[in-house]
Amino acid sequence: MKLAMLNDTIVPLDQLDPIYFDRGIYFGDGVYEVLRSYNGKLFALSEHLQRFAHSLEAVRINSVDIDTVRRRVERAFQTAELPDAKIYFHVTRGSAPRNHVWDTELEPNFFLTVSAVPDCSHEKASGIAVLTHPDWRWKRCDIKSLNLLANVLARQDAIEKGYDEAILVDEAGLITEGAGSAFFAIQGNTLQTAPLTANILPSITRAYIIKTAQNIGMEIVEQCLTPTQAASANELLTAMTTKDIVPVVKFDETTIADGKPGPHTRAIAEAFLKFTV
Amino acid sequence: MKLAMLNDTIVPLDQLDPIYFDRGIYFGDGVYEVLRSYNGKLFALSEHLQRFAHSLEAVRINSVDIDTVRRRVERAFQTAELPDAKIYFHVTRGSAPRNHVWDTELEPNFFLTVSAVPDCSHEKASGIAVLTHPDWRWKRCDIKSLNLLANVLARQDAIEKGYDEAILVDEAGLITEGAGSAFFAIQGNTLQTAPLTANILPSITRAYIIKTAQNIGMEIVEQCLTPTQAASANELLTAMTTKDIVPVVKFDETTIADGKPGPHTRAIAEAFLKFTV
Repeated sequence: MKLAMLNDTIVPLDQLDPIYFDRGIYFGDGVYEVLRSYNGKLFALSEHLQRFAHSLEAVRINSVDIDTVRRRVERAFQTAELPDAKIYFHVTRGSAPRNHVWDTELEPNFFLTVSAVPDCSHEKASGIAVLTHPDWRWKRCDIKSLNLLANVLARQDAIEKGYDEAILVDEAGLITEGAGSAFFAIQGNTLQTAPLTANILPSITRAYIIKTAQNIGMEIVEQCLTPTQAASANELLTAMTTKDIVPVVKFDETTIADGKPGPHTRAIAEAFLKFTV
Repeated sequence: MKLAMLNDTIVPLDQLDPIYFDRGIYFGDGVYEVLRSYNGKLFALSEHLQRFAHSLEAVRINSVDIDTVRRRVERAFQTAELPDAKIYFHVTRGSAPRNHVWDTELEPNFFLTVSAVPDCSHEKASGIAVLTHPDWRWKRCDIKSLNLLANVLARQDAIEKGYDEAILVDEAGLITEGAGSAFFAIQGNTLQTAPLTANILPSITRAYIIKTAQNIGMEIVEQCLTPTQAASANELLTAMTTKDIVPVVKFDETTIADGKPGPHTRAIAEAFLKFTV
């Protein structure tokens, strides 16, 4: 390489931090996790590490020791002293001059942040509005990768139109999941959500919700919904790590039931909290 | 945000370069271009800038002035003093704490490198081998974005199996393009390649090749090929900015024609070079 330029400045290559050659930025060549704590206790750390290991394996970043990641997460969490902490971390394949083909000796880069879990009590109490958007994502959404531009564009579109989350609809006209959440409908005593085979993320909160719903006697159907089915459901909800269960009271133009969070959603949310203590 | 960690080190937030919060790394939220010069002269700069403007607009990064980008490219190229230069540049939406939703006031980050065009005379003389791979990419491949993990995984798979490039096959069983190249077949006097509607990048080299082939009296068919059709073609070729036209002599297990670059490919390559002087 001969030279590099940052905005209007030509920078000598030896003065450039290797982060500028991170394959994470060139290709999104990395995987990530977000987990949280409730009242001083990390929630589902093992499940997050297990999923992270799956993501790493799927993109063939082989030299990351999961126990090392666990220790880093625990140490960062203890150091931050935040009872309700949101922990984000990613591993990229490493830093190297841009080339699709990677050097198997590359040293992966690990980056982690701890911040306070944003308050979502209003969303939980009042419910949110969701807007459908075409699912433009790649075919390997089982991998929690840094290729998130489709999610970003869908979420932004929803926000700018006065909604809170985008619900992604694939080419077959079926709902997969939200831009940053799992998506569920309740009809009678049945909880319905997309199956893991529908090119969705194996959401950890989703798994807990299914377990919770079973525990309180609900039927589970893992089958994709159409937007029409979703709009006519008794209740809708989204789920994600940082906010756990958030009721949905508006789907596109349609108000769900009476526009307030429903009883099954409330029951699931209450039962879910028992897992977090 | 409370703290950040790089590998095993907890780093005070105020000592962390904003590049660590680049939306390019969190989401691949940026777009890029690669162009080259031939013998001291930039090739197709205007076309690359036009495509870059399209990519920026498609992801709604609105505050980048294309004339500024042009001046940066020209200045970097002049400074580097490389007659056969490869110029890579990207713009990301900017640096901010991680959030899918963006702040419209964010200042985009521009990064550019200049390096020597790698020698590919052997590939041009002998031809390359290509291996099919499922097309896992997102649905907006018209945008030249930093979400390239699908391309990376496909290319790596090809390389590790002794091939030079991956040729992507969509769910309908049709060839879209290469992991980092456009793809063409020649049958008789006809040049066939995927149409721009097939979720491919509007490759600038592809456009020049079509023009070139027309100039030398060939018929053009813009229609996707199946792997079976490709394997039975008289000639195959790939095209990309840094190497322009590269003959393909092996497609999966099949040797193409006599395993040597064919006469039409040679004629196109020679005619193409006239555009570069």
